[in-house]
Amino acid sequence: MDKKNAFYAQSGGVTAVINASAAGVIEAARENSATIGTVYAGLNGIVGALQEDLIDTSKESSVDVAALKHTPGGAFGSCRYKMKSYDDSPLEYERLIAVFKAHNIGYFFYNGGGDSADTCLKVSQIAEKMGYPIQAIHIPKTIDNDLPLTDCSPGFGSVAKYIATSTREASLDIASMCATSTKVFILEVMGRHAGWIAASGGLAAEKTGDAPHIILFPEIPFSREKFISKVEQTISEKGYCVVVASEGAQYSDGAHISGSINKDAFGHQQLGGVAPTLASMIKQSTGYKYHWALADYLQRSARHIASKTDVDQAYAVGRRAVELAVQGKSSVMVSIERDSTEEYSWSLGEVPLEKVANMEKKMPRSFITKDGFGITQTARDYLQPLISGEDHPPYKNGLPDYVQLKNVMVPKKLKNSFEG
Amino acid sequence: MDKKNAFYAQSGGVTAVINASAAGVIEAARENSATIGTVYAGLNGIVGALQEDLIDTSKESSVDVAALKHTPGGAFGSCRYKMKSYDDSPLEYERLIAVFKAHNIGYFFYNGGGDSADTCLKVSQIAEKMGYPIQAIHIPKTIDNDLPLTDCSPGFGSVAKYIATSTREASLDIASMCATSTKVFILEVMGRHAGWIAASGGLAAEKTGDAPHIILFPEIPFSREKFISKVEQTISEKGYCVVVASEGAQYSDGAHISGSINKDAFGHQQLGGVAPTLASMIKQSTGYKYHWALADYLQRSARHIASKTDVDQAYAVGRRAVELAVQGKSSVMVSIERDSTEEYSWSLGEVPLEKVANMEKKMPRSFITKDGFGITQTARDYLQPLISGEDHPPYKNGLPDYVQLKNVMVPKKLKNSFEG
Repeated sequence: MDKKNAFYAQSGGVTAVINASAAGVIEAARENSATIGTVYAGLNGIVGALQEDLIDTSKESSVDVAALKHTPGGAFGSCRYKMKSYDDSPLEYERLIAVFKAHNIGYFFYNGGGDSADTCLKVSQIAEKMGYPIQAIHIPKTIDNDLPLTDCSPGFGSVAKYIATSTREASLDIASMCATSTKVFILEVMGRHAGWIAASGGLAAEKTGDAPHIILFPEIPFSREKFISKVEQTISEKGYCVVVASEGAQYSDGAHISGSINKDAFGHQQLGGVAPTLASMIKQSTGYKYHWALADYLQRSARHIASKTDVDQAYAVGRRAVELAVQGKSSVMVSIERDSTEEYSWSLGEVPLEKVANMEKKMPRSFITKDGFGITQTARDYLQPLISGEDHPPYKNGLPDYVQLKNVMVPKKLKNSFEG
Repeated sequence: MDKKNAFYAQSGGVTAVINASAAGVIEAARENSATIGTVYAGLNGIVGALQEDLIDTSKESSVDVAALKHTPGGAFGSCRYKMKSYDDSPLEYERLIAVFKAHNIGYFFYNGGGDSADTCLKVSQIAEKMGYPIQAIHIPKTIDNDLPLTDCSPGFGSVAKYIATSTREASLDIASMCATSTKVFILEVMGRHAGWIAASGGLAAEKTGDAPHIILFPEIPFSREKFISKVEQTISEKGYCVVVASEGAQYSDGAHISGSINKDAFGHQQLGGVAPTLASMIKQSTGYKYHWALADYLQRSARHIASKTDVDQAYAVGRRAVELAVQGKSSVMVSIERDSTEEYSWSLGEVPLEKVANMEKKMPRSFITKDGFGITQTARDYLQPLISGEDHPPYKNGLPDYVQLKNVMVPKKLKNSFEG
């Protein structure tokens, strides 16, 4: 039997645990060395394959590979690069297959979200058509938790834990200060299309009335009037108000909240954000003193407060991808199945990529309270297990001790370079 | 001997560890019950004393008091309220002394920064003058680390650890993405007048050239030209650039960076901030894609990643304040002394309040590199021990398990209320 090498790439926005999936792939491949040769990682994701920039992971020690389990970011680099359709860009696929052929690559492990699932499927189909079959397995990853047909997506649980923790901590801060100072605190969180991350802020509350008092979801049309009224009501009852706002929160016509007033003096559009816009509305309507925070990359790289459940799942889906490949499977995504919520338990499954690609899973309406500003018990039951367990990284000199791989490049074999 | 009660109040912005000082005060007072009666805490700081809103800490269990050591925020409420001079506002001081007399309070423990040190001194002096002597001891607290005559201020080490960790984590994120996406990441941190917090971001770097590549201090006049040039040089060398910017960064004429372009469409001034302004400059001058984060309250409430050194010191200064009071001391601040840096060790001292009040300790120039964009080895030697050690809080259901005190109010004894 002809032993083939494997290609692994990270795609899209990275997470606190995507490297745990990489560790799972590399470790499982090493255990299956009778079937799988070397794991080559794409430098900066699929772009690495196109440019024949391959990293030889066999040069990494087992200690360093294991350390990927507690290291955030993308150890080999990721990219925002969506492959076009074959009809639009046949050269791209031909190049990919040429690189795979040159390096005897027979396994394609793609670690990403919905767009990457689509690419993974195309690579499998086109390789087949071009007479160089590739076993393509998709490894789920997205902080947005919007992949369909999997109970959750690796990366989400850790962001959720970070946001819930930060919301609880900042709420204690403002509760202490509100008598004479700040009355409103707004935390802007990621999630352009789905409110999963915003919802996780709701876990900070232990009982009814606890902060956060308002959550703004992309799924619920924003009404300035209702929002301000809820802020005022909350302050009159509690003395302060904590808001968790999704960056994707929008008006009923689809206009983003920050859209109206996010031009700076230079006329740039990227400035601003939902939190300062809401703060400005509150100041204008009520005069209350406010503070706001925008966690941005901090939330998705916060490996120091990762969810153990999330780390375990990220690692497991990486391993399972290799196991499925060894079993001869292709064009599937590894999925996470919830076997029980009461006493949370999970197992791994597989889903045909046709069903996954380019679908977005939004928050069900039943997860959001009737007034649109909170999460229901159903949502809590779903979310709570995903943030469970701590997996503190090792520390050195007071800081998390993250690994930096050697990333030794594989000598190129193709004469021409890829122009893209 | 007439056994007197004690009054304890938290002042100004709260921190991740100010409650550890509260625990130190309460536990030490309980151990010295032959001398000190009940510890009354001011509801919302000194305002609680003026309004006779006193919390009876004797109603709290020893387990709950101990849990304050791992709970952020101000357990009794804090305030932003600066007492005027006696000449400007004699009624305020007379009221304070009346409340102290009514509740047989002979010890005043004030937990705050420079302003509070000043208040603490005044209370001591005026009480003496009014024939009702109070032993007033100041317990240092400020994330800004700008208190003089103490090696560091409790609260700072934990913010420093949070900022250094977040900088390291976000840097791994952008390093993964920069090939095809974001090239610049800016983290805005607190510190309106002194660059201590911004400097702590520099600890994220392990060796020369590591992120963060640029730190902006309030102490160094900002030059847009030099800044943009450094950003471009860094991106051409590293592929990306990480900036840690103090909210207090300013031009040579004292104008804040965000000052020029922080008006929103409603004309409000509070919107904006240094990070989005810098991002806008970069976009305008270079066109690079950027991300920015503004940690705000998240940084000073992040008990989940507190520095063990900081927690230990915060607790110790609280205990020592009581011990000094028992020894008959007054008008002093407990200070932290660095006995050795090489193998870091510290002990407690005391400083006369006259020398502390209303002084600000800025970063020495020797802590900042010649080009003004980084920290020197001297700064690292100073900062590193302060973020050392982890003191993970207990977790429940995936979240830090912070205590909520009962906060039982003491029945009022005075007929009149205070109008302020």
